Amino acid sequence: MTKDAIIKDFEAIVGSDNVMTSETDRHTYSYDAAVLDSVMPALVVRPTNSEELGKTVKLCNDNGLPLTVRGAGTNLSGGTIPHPGGVVVLTNGLNRILEINEQDMYAVVEPGVVTAKFAAEVASKGLFYPPDPGSQTVSTLGGNVAENAGGLRGLKYGVTKDYVMGVDFWDVDGNLIKSGSRTVKCVTGYNLAGLMVASEGTLGVFDKLILKLVPPVLAAKSMMAVFPSMKAASETVAAIIANKIVPATLEIMDNFTIRTVENFRKAGLPTDAAAMLLIEVDGHPAQVEDEAAKVEEICKQNSASEIKIANDAAERDAVWQARRDALPALANLKPTCVLEDATVPRSQIPAMIAALDEISNKYNLTIGTFGHAGDGNLHPTILTDKRDTKEWQRVEEAIEMIFDRALALGGTLSGEHGIGLAKSKFIESETSPGTLAYSRRMKSVLDPKGILNPHKIIG
Amino acid sequence: MTKDAIIKDFEAIVGSDNVMTSETDRHTYSYDAAVLDSVMPALVVRPTNSEELGKTVKLCNDNGLPLTVRGAGTNLSGGTIPHPGGVVVLTNGLNRILEINEQDMYAVVEPGVVTAKFAAEVASKGLFYPPDPGSQTVSTLGGNVAENAGGLRGLKYGVTKDYVMGVDFWDVDGNLIKSGSRTVKCVTGYNLAGLMVASEGTLGVFDKLILKLVPPVLAAKSMMAVFPSMKAASETVAAIIANKIVPATLEIMDNFTIRTVENFRKAGLPTDAAAMLLIEVDGHPAQVEDEAAKVEEICKQNSASEIKIANDAAERDAVWQARRDALPALANLKPTCVLEDATVPRSQIPAMIAALDEISNKYNLTIGTFGHAGDGNLHPTILTDKRDTKEWQRVEEAIEMIFDRALALGGTLSGEHGIGLAKSKFIESETSPGTLAYSRRMKSVLDPKGILNPHKIIG
Repeated sequence: MTKDAIIKDFEAIVGSDNVMTSETDRHTYSYDAAVLDSVMPALVVRPTNSEELGKTVKLCNDNGLPLTVRGAGTNLSGGTIPHPGGVVVLTNGLNRILEINEQDMYAVVEPGVVTAKFAAEVASKGLFYPPDPGSQTVSTLGGNVAENAGGLRGLKYGVTKDYVMGVDFWDVDGNLIKSGSRTVKCVTGYNLAGLMVASEGTLGVFDKLILKLVPPVLAAKSMMAVFPSMKAASETVAAIIANKIVPATLEIMDNFTIRTVENFRKAGLPTDAAAMLLIEVDGHPAQVEDEAAKVEEICKQNSASEIKIANDAAERDAVWQARRDALPALANLKPTCVLEDATVPRSQIPAMIAALDEISNKYNLTIGTFGHAGDGNLHPTILTDKRDTKEWQRVEEAIEMIFDRALALGGTLSGEHGIGLAKSKFIESETSPGTLAYSRRMKSVLDPKGILNPHKIIG
Repeated sequence: MTKDAIIKDFEAIVGSDNVMTSETDRHTYSYDAAVLDSVMPALVVRPTNSEELGKTVKLCNDNGLPLTVRGAGTNLSGGTIPHPGGVVVLTNGLNRILEINEQDMYAVVEPGVVTAKFAAEVASKGLFYPPDPGSQTVSTLGGNVAENAGGLRGLKYGVTKDYVMGVDFWDVDGNLIKSGSRTVKCVTGYNLAGLMVASEGTLGVFDKLILKLVPPVLAAKSMMAVFPSMKAASETVAAIIANKIVPATLEIMDNFTIRTVENFRKAGLPTDAAAMLLIEVDGHPAQVEDEAAKVEEICKQNSASEIKIANDAAERDAVWQARRDALPALANLKPTCVLEDATVPRSQIPAMIAALDEISNKYNLTIGTFGHAGDGNLHPTILTDKRDTKEWQRVEEAIEMIFDRALALGGTLSGEHGIGLAKSKFIESETSPGTLAYSRRMKSVLDPKGILNPHKIIG
């Protein structure tokens, strides 16, 4: 078929308003939040219901057109960068919350629903959807599932995977595949819903998601503790967990990040602090009191020089605003900001912090470190300018060394940002040649023409 | 190769003591806990380390020998019934707990470790492994993962799936595949560990499991509430959840089951009670007090005639012994005991209970009903004699009607017992023809000769 004929076919499915071919439109969807080159798609298609979505997938497959599904494009590993000449399928027209079932504590949503909007809607019904990726105000639930997005509450509440009860998705032939259930327990057939999680749009196109909800949090207490060194702060993290306390959130920030955040928004942060922990415990009010007291005690035993407990909602908001400011504040400093997410078992956080220090010195790079210390998921953030090719080479070497160190400490290449294009070449070093071969065989039979988000994950 | 030559090859791998060919041995491994005909394997092989296991799998594949992995054989859907003339691979020689990491709260185990033994070992380190399938005293962790075993704590703590952080497994060619990590967050590559869960030994052979552990429970309170009808009891279940209380355990028993249990072990159960709920709340001591008081109030509002709170460990044990007695007591009554596990969203429990009553009357069958009401996972248990062909036909019709009703109520064919051989013909009615085709395509490329536990799940 000619390109014009294909465009007409897409228009027949989704209407001409929902097929975009202008250079501006195509450029808009040529990149995501990863530090990678943009790639122009041939066209952008926006289905607005399930049937249109299924037909769009089938039309792509019939014509061998590479297809990349895109929610908000907040991906940090290039998972939403299209294939040259391919089709971008937008999900922002598939943004309905189809059901919030309060009695059975689940929701059914279309993939394009925005995470924070969903969480707020759930909260308004007196329930709680815990996953809170950093991009939640714009990210979509479909993207969250496709990437197995994490967030600040990972250590106590788990990640997106832990809230996926079922996924309906389209296979490349336009058949609707159903996996999972509205029930707490379900073992009918292969766990395809589980396979879809973190599959980055390479094995199917999400039609509907069934998500688990939990009872609301009864009480919470936030605090901020200041430490004389990153070592002391990171040892405190390990000590809190070793004392069998699992805070809802347990974040770390180094001095460079603290100063940058304070410059970004004058919030009265201790700019001379070598390190800071931001902690929230939640649960039954009595549990919160007990755990907060224990956490305070452990911080003191580990040389905390100051512990501030948020006394009201405004003070609590201030704590978390500082954390949310970390990335935008750092990103403001230099033209290029590489946000890594190598992850280690939490007891190895002190060792990983030391390794980052060494790497920053060795390659003479500015690395701000913050992140989800409580679940071992650090975000070393390299500030650079990609146009400075010499420095950029050092950045690439530093990234490889970060991966090496994380793996040597029993960790993983990626805690929550995905593999996408950025990390696919490193995947074998964490797994095995057989793992990659097994994955590729699976992909080859489920997507024989290789149209579903080509080259992501398995290269 | 001749059969003798193949036996010699197996002996070269695992030693002659670990290859069994006698009729007695083969008969021992010809059946499991499902009500299905036994099938004689050609031989039984017992690897005692990882390398032997990998070589065993490869030898089977090289010779096109069907292979069924067997832990304790407690499977209720025929998942461990071998293929005619196939090989049974026992995992009881792969029973080492390789690591319990208290700081990072995970464990690494071989697949043949017995569930309750593992849970006790974890408890002795001051941590908690929640999944508690009914067969836990003999079942193995490998079997639990292969079936995604549930148990009594599903509603609050989830099922086996929720504790699988990683799986190393052998593919048919004897390559070791690695998926998941020792970290709380990991998105490196496809979620093959998730795919392995509930795959019933059809996609790979487990080598090692990485399992999540959680902090211990600080306090718990058990109670027993008596109701004038199953309707009142099941409405109480829905009311407890609707009040945002998620007990650790919330079990139901009908009058027939109560009487049978009391006959089995004189424990002083109220034999005139139409229905009973067995409830345990756990958590922080203050939370336990609050929730227990609320649960008691809700039971009273829903016409509970008696509520007994266990005052000490002995009384608590008595409550749960009664529940554990339900299946053996029922199974004692008749030659054949069909334990079903159709599952519905928990708000539909009253409707499902009514349907079971109707089905029991329509087909003139004795059905004892008990189970995990809190997560919608009932165990209607049909007591019959398979040799009575007329009644057996009514039993089969009743089972189909149980499935129909569960699906009509938004439920699933199987909450926790698996599909195996017993339910594979019904799978399409819950999912879609495309789902089965997608699953079969995947299986065909990952196991081209179809040696891994043939015909299970996808027929």
